[in-house]
Amino acid sequence: MITKNVRSTIASHLMLKKGDKVLVAVSGGVDSVVLLDILGRLSTEYSLSLIIAHLDHRLRGEESSEDARFVAKLAEQYGLPLIGESIDVRSIAEERKVGIEEAARFVRLRFLRKAADDAGATKIAIGHTANDLAETMLFNLIRGAGMTGLAGIKPVNAPFIRPLIEISRSEIVSYANEHGLSWREDRSNADMAFTRNRIRHQIVPALSELNPDVIGALLRTSEIVREEQDAFFELLERPWQEALKIEAEEGKICLNRAYVAHVSIGIRRALLRRALERVRGDLRGIGKVHIDSLCQLIASARAHGEIHLPGLLAQVQGGELVLISRYSRPETVAPQEVPLG
Amino acid sequence: MITKNVRSTIASHLMLKKGDKVLVAVSGGVDSVVLLDILGRLSTEYSLSLIIAHLDHRLRGEESSEDARFVAKLAEQYGLPLIGESIDVRSIAEERKVGIEEAARFVRLRFLRKAADDAGATKIAIGHTANDLAETMLFNLIRGAGMTGLAGIKPVNAPFIRPLIEISRSEIVSYANEHGLSWREDRSNADMAFTRNRIRHQIVPALSELNPDVIGALLRTSEIVREEQDAFFELLERPWQEALKIEAEEGKICLNRAYVAHVSIGIRRALLRRALERVRGDLRGIGKVHIDSLCQLIASARAHGEIHLPGLLAQVQGGELVLISRYSRPETVAPQEVPLG
Repeated sequence: MITKNVRSTIASHLMLKKGDKVLVAVSGGVDSVVLLDILGRLSTEYSLSLIIAHLDHRLRGEESSEDARFVAKLAEQYGLPLIGESIDVRSIAEERKVGIEEAARFVRLRFLRKAADDAGATKIAIGHTANDLAETMLFNLIRGAGMTGLAGIKPVNAPFIRPLIEISRSEIVSYANEHGLSWREDRSNADMAFTRNRIRHQIVPALSELNPDVIGALLRTSEIVREEQDAFFELLERPWQEALKIEAEEGKICLNRAYVAHVSIGIRRALLRRALERVRGDLRGIGKVHIDSLCQLIASARAHGEIHLPGLLAQVQGGELVLISRYSRPETVAPQEVPLG
Repeated sequence: MITKNVRSTIASHLMLKKGDKVLVAVSGGVDSVVLLDILGRLSTEYSLSLIIAHLDHRLRGEESSEDARFVAKLAEQYGLPLIGESIDVRSIAEERKVGIEEAARFVRLRFLRKAADDAGATKIAIGHTANDLAETMLFNLIRGAGMTGLAGIKPVNAPFIRPLIEISRSEIVSYANEHGLSWREDRSNADMAFTRNRIRHQIVPALSELNPDVIGALLRTSEIVREEQDAFFELLERPWQEALKIEAEEGKICLNRAYVAHVSIGIRRALLRRALERVRGDLRGIGKVHIDSLCQLIASARAHGEIHLPGLLAQVQGGELVLISRYSRPETVAPQEVPLG
């Protein structure tokens, strides 16, 4: 049943094609153990070559090392190559002055990308489940994160694929038990992500009492949001091309002020959000109030003027709106990646 | 402070213009008592004529009658005309074979519209707060209600206006206490809406522990969703006009099959959703699976074919896709109205 559902997820999101070389991220937890097992079963049908990747974050001392040994044994059982690495995430967090969770996410993505490159893998499979998706949506909703937040986790964000994204955690645990799989419990959740953990252990169960299929409901909502977002961005391409004067280089964009001032307010705001996103790399910290102030700048009678927004400078110069980044480009970590649960 | 915020909500959503005659829905609860008081303070500035409307649902025996007397006294204090009506909601629910909550919503909207007509009111003011908005969004999210659900409650849905929609319930209670207002506690919530009540008394407090301003976060999210939806629907107008062959009469729409089949999948789905909504009046009960089957029908090699969808019949006839409603038009109750908390 779950294998059938995973196959349908893979097909509908075009996750795999025949002959793909897939790096499978295996932490040793139940999600990734089941992911590996199912991909193993599909590997003949899709002529897949699988490679296991395991990162030891060294955040839980001896337990972390045991996880690494567990995954090594798993690789032996399945007869698959293993790329393992051990990185002291805590010291990287201190060095970069970021939280443990953010550092872990950064280190993890860098490791997976490099491992995939080294192995010549075309895809990186990650064991995110429908529960991770639901938790991420709720997490974003609580923070007020707008549309991208509500879309949750993308099933495909090349080279990453998430074949379990439409499967609930309870189905995954059932599968593991039925197939006699063993896995490692991750006890780090409580330390690593307080909010996320509260969502998992308190909010989701409370919501499940109101709708037993709340995970399915959130999954459907994320599909609808993503579908509408895709259609919207496609339709926005025409006014965007009309508005764009010069996308001269990274970190600077020049728009036709009169055009932007005269489209309807909704389109104007969408164009400005897109421009900010292109200049800054993402929209973190940008709120309605910032877009409002940009609209005022454009609409003002003055020929010249400027305002400072988070991370950038906006100038009107006669008929042009110029947006200039005040940062160098961030490292190219996919902006929508979320921490693993 | 709250009066200033209400004034800003009124201005930014163009809720009132000078000389408006406003029917104010007053249940006697704190939200509507504060709404009335604030509109009273603004009535000179806006040259408003206010009329109070109160519906006695007769759901709580003597308490309901006391509510009615309380509102009558309020009208006297403010020196405003009162339109009151008493309707046995329970018997209407039985007659129409619907739940009490749905019947109450239907009766209430019909009463308010009729009272506004009778009084020649141009606006109907309702005391929905940011908490009602947040609770509605969570309620819709739990059910998996898609974009319209995430947009929550509209600040303006003519003739309805919601001047308190950006104010939290705690601010409203503070205002009432500061200004020495008295109000009636509504003890019917527990009976009337189990899920809604659980959201109010369990889910929202739990989320507030994770983000004390979760109500504000949901308010901002609803604004972003509505803004993007408006822009999207505006951009969709062009492909919609291309796709539309005949919108002959109510209950039937005819689309250009080849056009719909050849736009990108996201636009195709958006066009089909819009067509279904136009034919049926709303999208209740329509899911991704139904849109998928419509896409298959259009894409099939067959010149003729038909499928049944909830409430309508879809036929392909050569180059046309024809959608025919199987119901008579529902009563014109605004589809986005939500039950009052």
